[in-house]
Amino acid sequence: MKMIATPQSMQFDTVLPLQSGASLRGYALSFETYGELNADKSNAVLICHALNASHHVAGSYAGQDKSEGWWDNMIGPGKPLDTDKFFVIGVNNLGSCFGSTGPMHINPDTGRVYGADFPVVTVEDWVNAQARLLDALGIQTLAAVMGGSLGGMQALSWALQYPERVRHAVVIASAPNLTAENIAFNEVARRAIVTDPDFHGGHFYAHGTVPKRGLRIARMIGHITYLSDDVMNEKFGRQLIAAGKGGAQDDYLFSTLEAEFQIESYLRYQGDKFAEYFDANTYLLITRALDYFDPARTYGGDLSHALARASCKFLLVSFTTDWRFAPKRSREIVKALLHNRRDVSYAEIDAPHGHDAFLLDDPRYMGVLRSYFDSIKEPA
Amino acid sequence: MKMIATPQSMQFDTVLPLQSGASLRGYALSFETYGELNADKSNAVLICHALNASHHVAGSYAGQDKSEGWWDNMIGPGKPLDTDKFFVIGVNNLGSCFGSTGPMHINPDTGRVYGADFPVVTVEDWVNAQARLLDALGIQTLAAVMGGSLGGMQALSWALQYPERVRHAVVIASAPNLTAENIAFNEVARRAIVTDPDFHGGHFYAHGTVPKRGLRIARMIGHITYLSDDVMNEKFGRQLIAAGKGGAQDDYLFSTLEAEFQIESYLRYQGDKFAEYFDANTYLLITRALDYFDPARTYGGDLSHALARASCKFLLVSFTTDWRFAPKRSREIVKALLHNRRDVSYAEIDAPHGHDAFLLDDPRYMGVLRSYFDSIKEPA
Repeated sequence: MKMIATPQSMQFDTVLPLQSGASLRGYALSFETYGELNADKSNAVLICHALNASHHVAGSYAGQDKSEGWWDNMIGPGKPLDTDKFFVIGVNNLGSCFGSTGPMHINPDTGRVYGADFPVVTVEDWVNAQARLLDALGIQTLAAVMGGSLGGMQALSWALQYPERVRHAVVIASAPNLTAENIAFNEVARRAIVTDPDFHGGHFYAHGTVPKRGLRIARMIGHITYLSDDVMNEKFGRQLIAAGKGGAQDDYLFSTLEAEFQIESYLRYQGDKFAEYFDANTYLLITRALDYFDPARTYGGDLSHALARASCKFLLVSFTTDWRFAPKRSREIVKALLHNRRDVSYAEIDAPHGHDAFLLDDPRYMGVLRSYFDSIKEPA
Repeated sequence: MKMIATPQSMQFDTVLPLQSGASLRGYALSFETYGELNADKSNAVLICHALNASHHVAGSYAGQDKSEGWWDNMIGPGKPLDTDKFFVIGVNNLGSCFGSTGPMHINPDTGRVYGADFPVVTVEDWVNAQARLLDALGIQTLAAVMGGSLGGMQALSWALQYPERVRHAVVIASAPNLTAENIAFNEVARRAIVTDPDFHGGHFYAHGTVPKRGLRIARMIGHITYLSDDVMNEKFGRQLIAAGKGGAQDDYLFSTLEAEFQIESYLRYQGDKFAEYFDANTYLLITRALDYFDPARTYGGDLSHALARASCKFLLVSFTTDWRFAPKRSREIVKALLHNRRDVSYAEIDAPHGHDAFLLDDPRYMGVLRSYFDSIKEPA
């Protein structure tokens, strides 16, 4: 039986000071919960999302086929993160385009849509906003906070910003900061959006336009970096579209404009789809939050020093073919935690799918997560 | 003393049939030569260029500072490819924007600028055009044909198309075809150009526009793939621009639009520079030639079978950190040649610079090339 998910929203009327020095006067957070909070409120698990996701983490919406949450393979009754035992919270981050206050909402200071004026938000800001949501839900301590990729950065930051409120941090396919190459890919994607004539300096809503050209390019670049070279070769290789249509394999179209190879039409399709629903300003904000995250920065780059604040137990997971957040980046975190004599488990999963592996069904991966959550289901 | 280079042009009035079935009625090739052709015309070395280069391979233009050719560190008097011993020819490919007939020239069939109507040209077409240039220069047999990246594909194709005219093929940082990931990066770059409103379906010359936004994005993507993750971290890391200007390292601007990290301003600069001089249609044509190259294709994917035609000796070189044309791709060629019992030398250079390494001064790399050319300077 499918688990039914019900989106909720919580309005906050107290000012949220942001890392940049700006602040949000008031804001709403969209969230969903699955399972039941136990009597002593000790079984809550917060899920933090990555670039392209939302508070809709698990379950399906009533009457909507194919509306499964983005981590529905991981979270639900009897699943690795078992909602028969845990109370799981999915929350949409500030600046997103899926319900929480973001660039397409009204700026109370001006009465106009924020657009490009939405303040830059950081991983630390998101965690602060998430903590207020927990306050409102009456949850003092999380059994665990978990996320993959940018979500993993939030889980790590929770352990640093609110060490007394987290018993376990599950940090998957993540990194202690972005490399120059990571930032470079984000920057190209941002430039594609910002230089789209339909972007209008971020105030495209007022112009009735959407910078779809830029969003398409951004998404195509992203997609390449989510997949491994191996899985791309396996899925697409040099297959021609004509061949897929029953044409002869050797029928090159000899065109620079037509999609010739299947990988091209796949990327175009992904780009088109994304441009239909994702907000351009949100893309800028979220990639910037990725760029800025760097807990070691105020410690002169010393990650061990930075992570000394964390007191919870950790599970780190990485995937061998993930070149966006390579295993060596997870190992940096593991090493820094061990240097602080923290309790840390680490699984490096031999999976072919690249960064995307953290969203996919891999029996070893799922097995590791199931065991970990099984071991922590009773409060310490 | 600097070697002075003098660009030349050769006009061809015979039809060049192209692989696509189209043809060019007449065309010009720009080229340069360095050194002297010996009496029996046995010391000629042809240099094939990659995406962003031209016939200006070595030497400098008289009176022009900083006008060194793109492989001037490799080619010249006393250099690894020694122009005191070899007669070296640099040739600009059809479809380029550096002098040979290309999209910005007049289509004799219509009297108008080709633009997007310039026919798709392939590596094989380029090699056929280069062979005609050699005919015109009275050169029957090349001592060697050499190129890096896309230039290496041409060198390999020479050995297959004109096996009797090549004594040695030097194939550097190349591949027997592009992977799905390679094609994907090319496709994103092309989409950025084609969807730029200033592209006008490739006829932007007539509109007095240049699709600079698209060219910038294309170049930024390219640049990321030319460099290794390691060298990017070493050169740029997470350095802020403010820090480079003497500002405090911890001064984030908290902006999604301003360049914040040094890698961002580097990429923007490279993109801006490229968009000033490179032709958008040429970019489409040359990336497509890369996509299409696949000598094994007509042999059911059997590279050994495809390379059986080659009879020359080979030197292959790859660079450990090159993820665009990884060493394993060169090894595929080596393996297929060995399978055919061809004489093949292979050097895998441990260099940090990624794909760009083939253009840089690395003593081991230069040493390998010097030894190889020393060994072949006398006709077999």
